[in-house]
Amino acid sequence: MDPERLRALLVEIQQGRVDVEDAMGQLGRLPFADIGFASVDHHRALRMGMPEVVLGLEKTPEQIAGIARELLRTQQNVLVTRVDARKAERIRELGVELDYREQARALISIQAPPKPVCAQPVAIVTAGTSDIPVAAEASVTLEACGVPTREVFDVGVAGLHRLLARVGELQTAPAVIVVAGMEGALPSVVGGLLGAPVIAVPTSVGYGAALGGLAALMGMLNSCASGVTVVNIDNGFGAAMAVWRLLRSVEASRDA
Amino acid sequence: MDPERLRALLVEIQQGRVDVEDAMGQLGRLPFADIGFASVDHHRALRMGMPEVVLGLEKTPEQIAGIARELLRTQQNVLVTRVDARKAERIRELGVELDYREQARALISIQAPPKPVCAQPVAIVTAGTSDIPVAAEASVTLEACGVPTREVFDVGVAGLHRLLARVGELQTAPAVIVVAGMEGALPSVVGGLLGAPVIAVPTSVGYGAALGGLAALMGMLNSCASGVTVVNIDNGFGAAMAVWRLLRSVEASRDA
Amino acid sequence: MDPERLRALLVEIQQGRVDVEDAMGQLGRLPFADIGFASVDHHRALRMGMPEVVLGLEKTPEQIAGIARELLRTQQNVLVTRVDARKAERIRELGVELDYREQARALISIQAPPKPVCAQPVAIVTAGTSDIPVAAEASVTLEACGVPTREVFDVGVAGLHRLLARVGELQTAPAVIVVAGMEGALPSVVGGLLGAPVIAVPTSVGYGAALGGLAALMGMLNSCASGVTVVNIDNGFGAAMAVWRLLRSVEASRDA
Amino acid sequence: MDPERLRALLVEIQQGRVDVEDAMGQLGRLPFADIGFASVDHHRALRMGMPEVVLGLEKTPEQIAGIARELLRTQQNVLVTRVDARKAERIRELGVELDYREQARALISIQAPPKPVCAQPVAIVTAGTSDIPVAAEASVTLEACGVPTREVFDVGVAGLHRLLARVGELQTAPAVIVVAGMEGALPSVVGGLLGAPVIAVPTSVGYGAALGGLAALMGMLNSCASGVTVVNIDNGFGAAMAVWRLLRSVEASRDA
Amino acid sequence: MDPERLRALLVEIQQGRVDVEDAMGQLGRLPFADIGFASVDHHRALRMGMPEVVLGLEKTPEQIAGIARELLRTQQNVLVTRVDARKAERIRELGVELDYREQARALISIQAPPKPVCAQPVAIVTAGTSDIPVAAEASVTLEACGVPTREVFDVGVAGLHRLLARVGELQTAPAVIVVAGMEGALPSVVGGLLGAPVIAVPTSVGYGAALGGLAALMGMLNSCASGVTVVNIDNGFGAAMAVWRLLRSVEASRDA
Amino acid sequence: MDPERLRALLVEIQQGRVDVEDAMGQLGRLPFADIGFASVDHHRALRMGMPEVVLGLEKTPEQIAGIARELLRTQQNVLVTRVDARKAERIRELGVELDYREQARALISIQAPPKPVCAQPVAIVTAGTSDIPVAAEASVTLEACGVPTREVFDVGVAGLHRLLARVGELQTAPAVIVVAGMEGALPSVVGGLLGAPVIAVPTSVGYGAALGGLAALMGMLNSCASGVTVVNIDNGFGAAMAVWRLLRSVEASRDA
Amino acid sequence: MDPERLRALLVEIQQGRVDVEDAMGQLGRLPFADIGFASVDHHRALRMGMPEVVLGLEKTPEQIAGIARELLRTQQNVLVTRVDARKAERIRELGVELDYREQARALISIQAPPKPVCAQPVAIVTAGTSDIPVAAEASVTLEACGVPTREVFDVGVAGLHRLLARVGELQTAPAVIVVAGMEGALPSVVGGLLGAPVIAVPTSVGYGAALGGLAALMGMLNSCASGVTVVNIDNGFGAAMAVWRLLRSVEASRDA
Amino acid sequence: MDPERLRALLVEIQQGRVDVEDAMGQLGRLPFADIGFASVDHHRALRMGMPEVVLGLEKTPEQIAGIARELLRTQQNVLVTRVDARKAERIRELGVELDYREQARALISIQAPPKPVCAQPVAIVTAGTSDIPVAAEASVTLEACGVPTREVFDVGVAGLHRLLARVGELQTAPAVIVVAGMEGALPSVVGGLLGAPVIAVPTSVGYGAALGGLAALMGMLNSCASGVTVVNIDNGFGAAMAVWRLLRSVEASRDA
Repeated sequence: MDPERLRALLVEIQQGRVDVEDAMGQLGRLPFADIGFASVDHHRALRMGMPEVVLGLEKTPEQIAGIARELLRTQQNVLVTRVDARKAERIRELGVELDYREQARALISIQAPPKPVCAQPVAIVTAGTSDIPVAAEASVTLEACGVPTREVFDVGVAGLHRLLARVGELQTAPAVIVVAGMEGALPSVVGGLLGAPVIAVPTSVGYGAALGGLAALMGMLNSCASGVTVVNIDNGFGAAMAVWRLLRSVEASRDA
Repeated sequence: MDPERLRALLVEIQQGRVDVEDAMGQLGRLPFADIGFASVDHHRALRMGMPEVVLGLEKTPEQIAGIARELLRTQQNVLVTRVDARKAERIRELGVELDYREQARALISIQAPPKPVCAQPVAIVTAGTSDIPVAAEASVTLEACGVPTREVFDVGVAGLHRLLARVGELQTAPAVIVVAGMEGALPSVVGGLLGAPVIAVPTSVGYGAALGGLAALMGMLNSCASGVTVVNIDNGFGAAMAVWRLLRSVEASRDA
Repeated sequence: MDPERLRALLVEIQQGRVDVEDAMGQLGRLPFADIGFASVDHHRALRMGMPEVVLGLEKTPEQIAGIARELLRTQQNVLVTRVDARKAERIRELGVELDYREQARALISIQAPPKPVCAQPVAIVTAGTSDIPVAAEASVTLEACGVPTREVFDVGVAGLHRLLARVGELQTAPAVIVVAGMEGALPSVVGGLLGAPVIAVPTSVGYGAALGGLAALMGMLNSCASGVTVVNIDNGFGAAMAVWRLLRSVEASRDA
Repeated sequence: MDPERLRALLVEIQQGRVDVEDAMGQLGRLPFADIGFASVDHHRALRMGMPEVVLGLEKTPEQIAGIARELLRTQQNVLVTRVDARKAERIRELGVELDYREQARALISIQAPPKPVCAQPVAIVTAGTSDIPVAAEASVTLEACGVPTREVFDVGVAGLHRLLARVGELQTAPAVIVVAGMEGALPSVVGGLLGAPVIAVPTSVGYGAALGGLAALMGMLNSCASGVTVVNIDNGFGAAMAVWRLLRSVEASRDA
Repeated sequence: MDPERLRALLVEIQQGRVDVEDAMGQLGRLPFADIGFASVDHHRALRMGMPEVVLGLEKTPEQIAGIARELLRTQQNVLVTRVDARKAERIRELGVELDYREQARALISIQAPPKPVCAQPVAIVTAGTSDIPVAAEASVTLEACGVPTREVFDVGVAGLHRLLARVGELQTAPAVIVVAGMEGALPSVVGGLLGAPVIAVPTSVGYGAALGGLAALMGMLNSCASGVTVVNIDNGFGAAMAVWRLLRSVEASRDA
Repeated sequence: MDPERLRALLVEIQQGRVDVEDAMGQLGRLPFADIGFASVDHHRALRMGMPEVVLGLEKTPEQIAGIARELLRTQQNVLVTRVDARKAERIRELGVELDYREQARALISIQAPPKPVCAQPVAIVTAGTSDIPVAAEASVTLEACGVPTREVFDVGVAGLHRLLARVGELQTAPAVIVVAGMEGALPSVVGGLLGAPVIAVPTSVGYGAALGGLAALMGMLNSCASGVTVVNIDNGFGAAMAVWRLLRSVEASRDA
Repeated sequence: MDPERLRALLVEIQQGRVDVEDAMGQLGRLPFADIGFASVDHHRALRMGMPEVVLGLEKTPEQIAGIARELLRTQQNVLVTRVDARKAERIRELGVELDYREQARALISIQAPPKPVCAQPVAIVTAGTSDIPVAAEASVTLEACGVPTREVFDVGVAGLHRLLARVGELQTAPAVIVVAGMEGALPSVVGGLLGAPVIAVPTSVGYGAALGGLAALMGMLNSCASGVTVVNIDNGFGAAMAVWRLLRSVEASRDA
Repeated sequence: MDPERLRALLVEIQQGRVDVEDAMGQLGRLPFADIGFASVDHHRALRMGMPEVVLGLEKTPEQIAGIARELLRTQQNVLVTRVDARKAERIRELGVELDYREQARALISIQAPPKPVCAQPVAIVTAGTSDIPVAAEASVTLEACGVPTREVFDVGVAGLHRLLARVGELQTAPAVIVVAGMEGALPSVVGGLLGAPVIAVPTSVGYGAALGGLAALMGMLNSCASGVTVVNIDNGFGAAMAVWRLLRSVEASRDA
């Protein structure tokens, strides 16, 4: 039941046009519907300034094109994740104009730039070059939310000097996303060097005992650096959304 | 190399008592040692106002008593996690006075109360009553950091009205820790209702296909609520530390 | 030994044309064969009004066409599951006319509409749009059994208002099939809201730690809503058959 | 918000003592609370004639005694599951009188016998003698719900004649619970012989490759008898509750 | 239905005292019961000369004593497996006289020595000394069946000369049971050296990546020596029974 | 060192043409070589009458053609397993004439028919039609060894009457190979009905929780019918070789 | 901070052009950068005489060609691993001349032959012919490092005489790489026969319970031959690098 | 057959006291025994200066005491691993005097100090204090072999400065054993900093997703530092033996 309908019902009671038992009945028949307005409100707040996100993974080009066309028509920002080059090409052929980010395998269109939520860039760190597509997915998602990012790529723990040489770039970040496959050790090292929130993203990079990313995932969950949190394998989008939750919490706190 | 030693060396160069090549040699022989002071600084910042934390799990009562005695002597706050009642009793018999929180299985002594870092309490939510010990570990850890908490216990998804009745208490929290065993569904529901950071803690509650908490862990990593992050099974301490990182990031942002 | 053969044998004994020891011998040589008629009877009952079901998964188009042609010739209803569009096309080219349900990946032909077994529709609920093919397989199977269904799709737990807004549609269902991938949380929520039988179907939707549907499966088996039962990953057909067993039990009880 | 409070609020609107905006505010501040009465209603319905169930597994004797004492004081029926003999003894020493069923590891007290919901007994079948405790848990749960049961124990598939000799007892059951460890084959055989709902319960009986019941669980999920559903390992209580949902659905259908 | 009852029924038909439809009815009501006599016959054959076997694992001393007492009273041979020393002691205290084989954790009483089924001893080979209890279980089971055995212990593949020195003892064995934990390599080597049937028994010996015997089990299933077959972890009894099936098949073939 | 070379060396010592230390040196330099003759002998015995077997799985058509051509040139019987239709076609194009068995995915050429080793056919039983390719691999392997087989297909446990109707065909088999996917229950039922050796072959038939055949494998290892042994998933060849070992043991016993 | 910059800074202090606090500041702002020169030095040492290695697995032909062209231009030796024939062909088409080793799936170009580090060849042993590609990757890597190798292929444990016949070739090797799939038993046997370092490489050869090489991996980790070490599945390159570390340690020891 | 017996036999042939056929017979009856002397020789070499090692894990105090007494009587050095304090105490009570190393859970007695095989100490590195028992097992094993060790404990990657401060101590080590639980990241960092052989030992330290050490094991197998090798979980003894093999190879190379 949306708030206007609820208000109208209450007015009718007040005016004596509906009696109390009838009103109880109406509410009783739709016992859960009246929850809607609150959560819609909430969702509106949540998404404020953020584009609609479409998970492209199991959708056809036609489905994606249809959704995107509707969103563009209503001037909304759009982000489509997990779209391979072939599917992106096909969507373009269907006449839908979205910017394709090949590395991130994402389509994006920002018609109304979101309000920036933080001054300092969020750092996105990768262990190897093969982890970059997942980092790029996190990056394009944050871009769509108006969050600046800084890339610190290919600083895996087997060549510690590469990471140490760039620690300065990490020290001012309000949050750090660390993307790594294989043994997934990088978040522990970063988490030990920095006090900022560290969100670890295991990747499916590797073979054999890497078990499609499970080894990295398990490694990160057992991180000896306390307070590191983890998202699903290859889930760059989820890591970005975790940062987004965090930055909005910061903002809410600042406003309070 | 600690900063004082480094400064002394530089002064000696300045004064001509050590020549440049000798100094290079001293630095060269200890190529990594000079990194120490920075990270110590960093760690001091990280731990500002926070007690020393001791993982009690694989330590003997004698070892814990020894460490705690030293910390107490130097007026430091102390938190010892994963201490069962028997071990706690034995430590007391060894003459070390710490406050034992039975539910949290933790020993704590706050001699210098930490500076509060946030006004609104962090919410700690559990699915069932069996998840409470893990929640209590998170709670006592945050308490030791000077972070207020609000407990919203036993609101698992099979009785949705329990959770919905208490959503109001969650809406102002700067972060929410959600503790659940069995199918680990609660973080998805909470993450859908709230825009705040959600840190999910799977517990080893359950039997059979619960696989000692792996089912809940896997469920949480696959949460359909985007931006939920996860820590290790039963790791209430880790979830609290993730919140602590987050709150310090908020604070740093506010100061900036 | 089929009942007619058994009766014939008994008549021969009665008429003195076969002596007892010979009859014992015939029964003794085929000690298990005489079980057949009972189970055939039973199967006939089980399948009363229900089409023959063919699992298309590992059969060639030629094999499926052959079986279907024979069934159609004898006026039987036919349902072929797990047939992709290409195979369906090939079967059509072989001259066998069956209705292809693309979403359900099933071929169906109802020549003699089955007797309806219940008045109220069985509810089929999905968490996301990617779960729909599995739901559709359940749906077409129930259709083939003469069971009405109601679809309540895309009501996953991360957007609780979507589900709550449609609870009314679920409350009269004699049974509910809940189809969900990822963390598999939806059956717990539905099971908590409703007292009806809930049959949970995990799907292979998701990636990484979803482990091809194992995470959802384990989640459902650990459901905190008591009395939820589970079938194999992506097994929409099995869920429908479980409902079918249930409805026939209801019917038998009503007749009794 | 419970129905009485809602009605009182509506009356106050009607009587002009509360204006519409205030009422909106009250409902708005507790946006989810008003869902409560529906689900309480529902739960009342669900539990009609059924005792309160307490999971004893991770509760202390003192906790169980406290809960049970309160329930007994208010004349409610009580069922406590997963209570070993030692804990049961301790509860008795605490002065709480409950009937202990050793095999089922359950405490029960039926003060107001529930209304019977079906005439024919539900069949509970086990493969071996070691599966009996799980079957007994299902049995005592159904007893507490007023459902008659028939035990068909020790009819595992390696000695088929034992099962076949007792099929007659199964044929009239409105539902069959099949409890089996090791390879978990029995539900497939029973499901092939009968058209009734079959709920399979894997047990942790076995060793080595039985993997604590996972082998039986996986076997049952892959049952070649269509429509068999499965609950968690050793979850006799859950199987009984699934039957309970089913019988109530039958009853609702009969009443309609 | 036992053969005598069946014969009686047929006689009654023959004599005109029961008509055909009544007889059909009687058979129809008990459709599976008549299978019994065949399988009982079969079982009698199977067990010819073999003791009754009781799996002691999850039985109480009282239960075992009760079963054993009854068997002894009727002059049957008895074998009870998986009985630890404490339980064995308790059974003796209950006044039941059985011979305890400590290494095999078995109780045995042979009152009527079984007819020997082969001249040459079956070889039982172990990789290490820790595998001996499982080998001993196989050995006592074969002893109970009247099958001579030869022990070739502690000949693991890391010290190949130990095995090679004893190959002569293996070459005449009609079958070889190979018991090994850790990497489970021994059956491959033995299977390559000998043409006889090789039954591999993985043991739970080892730690860490041994995974409670799963590593050995998986190794044996992947044996590069073709024709090696495998039983469950620590299942010495099962391996002996596989040999017993084999020897009876040999015997049947010799008689034919 | 082959026996003739060893004898020659001993003769040379005897005749004083080689002194002891030289002989020691020769033996010392080739410490392991002298093992060869024994195992070659053994292998000759093992392979008596059996074709050379080539595992085609990871070999190119050219490699297979090369090996087969050489074997055919020297009049040996040939069996190539795991060859798909395309590879078989390519081998034919390379001019090598072998008989292709499509269902078994095997190439075979019997130039010198092997001596039959048993009169009664070995039974090969499958649960479903999808298990037939694995059964066919077992069958063609036994055919290549001169062992007659009887096929009892599609007798899975969900339709028990199908199996029971054909038990008579199984009762005279010297050994039974049981091939089943999904829950892998059939070997338990067969093992309970028959006293003969039962070799269980799990297949990768199924989906989801079938885990590529692991569910069937685990089920079979936990078989409640004692003495059932198991080979690797889909390993029809291995099962046949286990039977071959067994039959040769029978034969050796008969000769003795 | 590189050594020259550090020296320059120290000279400036010495000359009074920078004061001590400024220098402290410079070092403080770049707390980790000064570690670089040491590790670069170290890496230079590590790579002395060894080609640059490029992991080709997830790189495009264009990326590989670009890197290789640059390396060749500067006269460096190049090794590219995990390049299939098609990708190699494409790289050649891009005008980059590298020698393709098909079996090893590697591209190599040695412009300046590395200094040999040992006189005796390292042995590379395989269980079967399917393991050869992994062995070849180890071999080409060692070749690129100037290490001679000896191949002892197809000596799996099911035909022990093959291995024993070639033990002599292994006895002088400074290290042995043992490559095996399936049950992974060969390293245990080799480790028992030889005192040299044994590096075990599991391969993904096999099917079903081989679990993509996990069975072999687990087997090798549980090797009963003490001191055997293991690398990842199919990781021939890693095994070669382990040998390379070992030989350089030998060399360092010899020089000392 | 030991070399002396072989020589004696050859002498008897030479002297005409044994004829050739008799000698063939003796050798033929023991076709493999003559391999023994070579491997004994080899083993003697392998163990040169090294004590006899007894795995105490599954042995009784009485068994260990018996073995140790015999070894001590014959003046051999003894090392018994995996002996807990209680078992050690019991062995002492049995009158066997061995030095108990509590941390390493080992008993040792060095009566004839082994010849030192290297000048520089082998480094043993641990991530945390809980990993020390495993490190201590490696340490006492190397001590028993006469290999000096240097302990670098508690230098886990979350506090990188601790490791970097001690890199100097590692740079001269001929080999490094790295012991770590949880995410097992330390070997990657150490392997990146050093060119020496790195042997990684995962420990069972941790809980939940640590999976008893499997997470660390998988992490180490996927190490991004090339050439790191791995032993079983908690296998400090195995790591020491790997170093021992390596050092003997160095020594052999130096002598050559």
